[in-house]
Amino acid sequence: MSRDLPFDKARDARGRPGEFEVIDTFFAPLAASAIGAYGLKDDAAIWQPTAGHDLVLTVDMLVESVHFLPTDPADLVARKLLRVNLSDLAAKGASPLGYLLALSLPARIDGAWLSQFAEGLALDQRAYGVSLWGGDTVSTDGPLTLSVTAVGQVPTGQALRRGGGQVGDDIFVTGTIGDGALGLKAATGMLDGLDEASRAQLIQRYQLPEPRVAFGPDLLTFATAALDVSDGLMADLGHLCDVSGTGATVEANCVPLSEPVARLLDMDRQHLVPVLTGGDDYEILFTARPGQEAAIQSRACEKGLRVTRIGTLTDKASGLRAVDRAGAEIVLAHRGYTHF
Amino acid sequence: MSRDLPFDKARDARGRPGEFEVIDTFFAPLAASAIGAYGLKDDAAIWQPTAGHDLVLTVDMLVESVHFLPTDPADLVARKLLRVNLSDLAAKGASPLGYLLALSLPARIDGAWLSQFAEGLALDQRAYGVSLWGGDTVSTDGPLTLSVTAVGQVPTGQALRRGGGQVGDDIFVTGTIGDGALGLKAATGMLDGLDEASRAQLIQRYQLPEPRVAFGPDLLTFATAALDVSDGLMADLGHLCDVSGTGATVEANCVPLSEPVARLLDMDRQHLVPVLTGGDDYEILFTARPGQEAAIQSRACEKGLRVTRIGTLTDKASGLRAVDRAGAEIVLAHRGYTHF
Repeated sequence: MSRDLPFDKARDARGRPGEFEVIDTFFAPLAASAIGAYGLKDDAAIWQPTAGHDLVLTVDMLVESVHFLPTDPADLVARKLLRVNLSDLAAKGASPLGYLLALSLPARIDGAWLSQFAEGLALDQRAYGVSLWGGDTVSTDGPLTLSVTAVGQVPTGQALRRGGGQVGDDIFVTGTIGDGALGLKAATGMLDGLDEASRAQLIQRYQLPEPRVAFGPDLLTFATAALDVSDGLMADLGHLCDVSGTGATVEANCVPLSEPVARLLDMDRQHLVPVLTGGDDYEILFTARPGQEAAIQSRACEKGLRVTRIGTLTDKASGLRAVDRAGAEIVLAHRGYTHF
Repeated sequence: MSRDLPFDKARDARGRPGEFEVIDTFFAPLAASAIGAYGLKDDAAIWQPTAGHDLVLTVDMLVESVHFLPTDPADLVARKLLRVNLSDLAAKGASPLGYLLALSLPARIDGAWLSQFAEGLALDQRAYGVSLWGGDTVSTDGPLTLSVTAVGQVPTGQALRRGGGQVGDDIFVTGTIGDGALGLKAATGMLDGLDEASRAQLIQRYQLPEPRVAFGPDLLTFATAALDVSDGLMADLGHLCDVSGTGATVEANCVPLSEPVARLLDMDRQHLVPVLTGGDDYEILFTARPGQEAAIQSRACEKGLRVTRIGTLTDKASGLRAVDRAGAEIVLAHRGYTHF
């Protein structure tokens, strides 16, 4: 691990830890279980691949005030950083192995923050069975900027892709949709009409997505295409359709909602827009050939995971549509965070 | 590749390209030769490992005004970003395969900058035989922040480490030392006494290190330990000694110098300090059992690379020392960029 930290050699007057202390105290323990990470005392990590497997690699960068709020607790920021990457791996059907961490730290980041950040990583490393393989830590005059490159493995040639969906495939999502977008509204004080517990539930979902790591490899049995919902349900379905060469129709009334979001929609149907187009859900959107639903539901049930069929892949000419209970198209100004 | 870019859908009034144009025009061509990158149309890259090889992974983050100058041309920034990572792989004895790129872009970054940045990457991809595997691009209010995770391979179990050096080993470096640190001084107007061509040569070396990619795998034949010189010669030798459990004596007069740096030392012996302790050389520092020098020089000659023996690993109690021609210790305030 590189040691180009905005810290002095020793503890300073404010009790800010020295640079070696930062690596040794906070980060080296996170690498203890990875043989090839060499306790972060080397410039690179070594991984001996498992025979019969491909590696899957993904990178995500989070910037303070863009992807998380400056007031978000450090442990939640750490866990979100790791989880958004684990979500990408799960959507490929991959099992996670390890990750490399790059941190650009403003001067206000102190030992207490780093300690809490490392605690968050440690918690999720145990939860998802991954280790820190290596990293780089640098100083910045700008916002806190965090990047994780996550590595997973999948049986050779079996990784799921965005392409692969066929006309007639059923469309499924895991978990519930809309909590991320409405949780952000709640966290920034832009959401009225909910009791405190429901607000807290939505904010938690925004701050701490639940990557479907345990279910990812199950997808290999039946999914034709998959990706995780980060840009927004319709935008991400659009990505899948673009690469698969299909259209899609989403039955909006089938989209699975958490109780707080269902209540918001009962109060004001306009909340359907952030549900369909908001981002940050980190659920898996996948397609499967017709007739697979019973097998899928059985597997989901074993994993204690809600999986819901929300529509059908159509021919490309039919485009990407969301329809209401009566089959009438719901007009959306745009599909999601990524503008079309 | 994620598409969370600070760009509008279409070209704006200033001719700033749309977000799809950025990925498709600038970055997708860099991924064209990597099957598992899927033209950056997916969330993750797939790599089928080569039988009999371990993977080597490393990450580096560069921040504007910390690691490169705001006035540095975009293509040189791109190439430096890639090269500092390739240097880490070479020092493990690994051959590079591909890389993932994370960019945090301030609003002033326009299509012209990105085009030049991508041109720099394309040039070095060809030079070093690597492809872009994936990436993430986000917006920031802060300085331009760039991160590369590079992946290479090495025959199973053979990756070189910082540890492995033994008392009595010869210490070698590739290329010349000190150009990076004195090049930075030249680039920031803090270096007098050189003609324009020499100044330009040093600045180029600072802006564009030459990772020893072709020589890296040769190290597997004879090196006991290796790392690249990024923190500074003495600091990095200190890292090698710390992990190897040895001391080291460097014969300062043997440290290989470029012509401009040799001339600077002739003018003022004080320039020896940045040579021994300055960073950013990205040469490989390695150790080998005694009696190997002829074989090493023969191999280096084949690759057209200068390799120089600069000292010996000693017992730990002797510490880390630089000595002059007469064998007297040269006192250095600190070892390099990483303060001890």
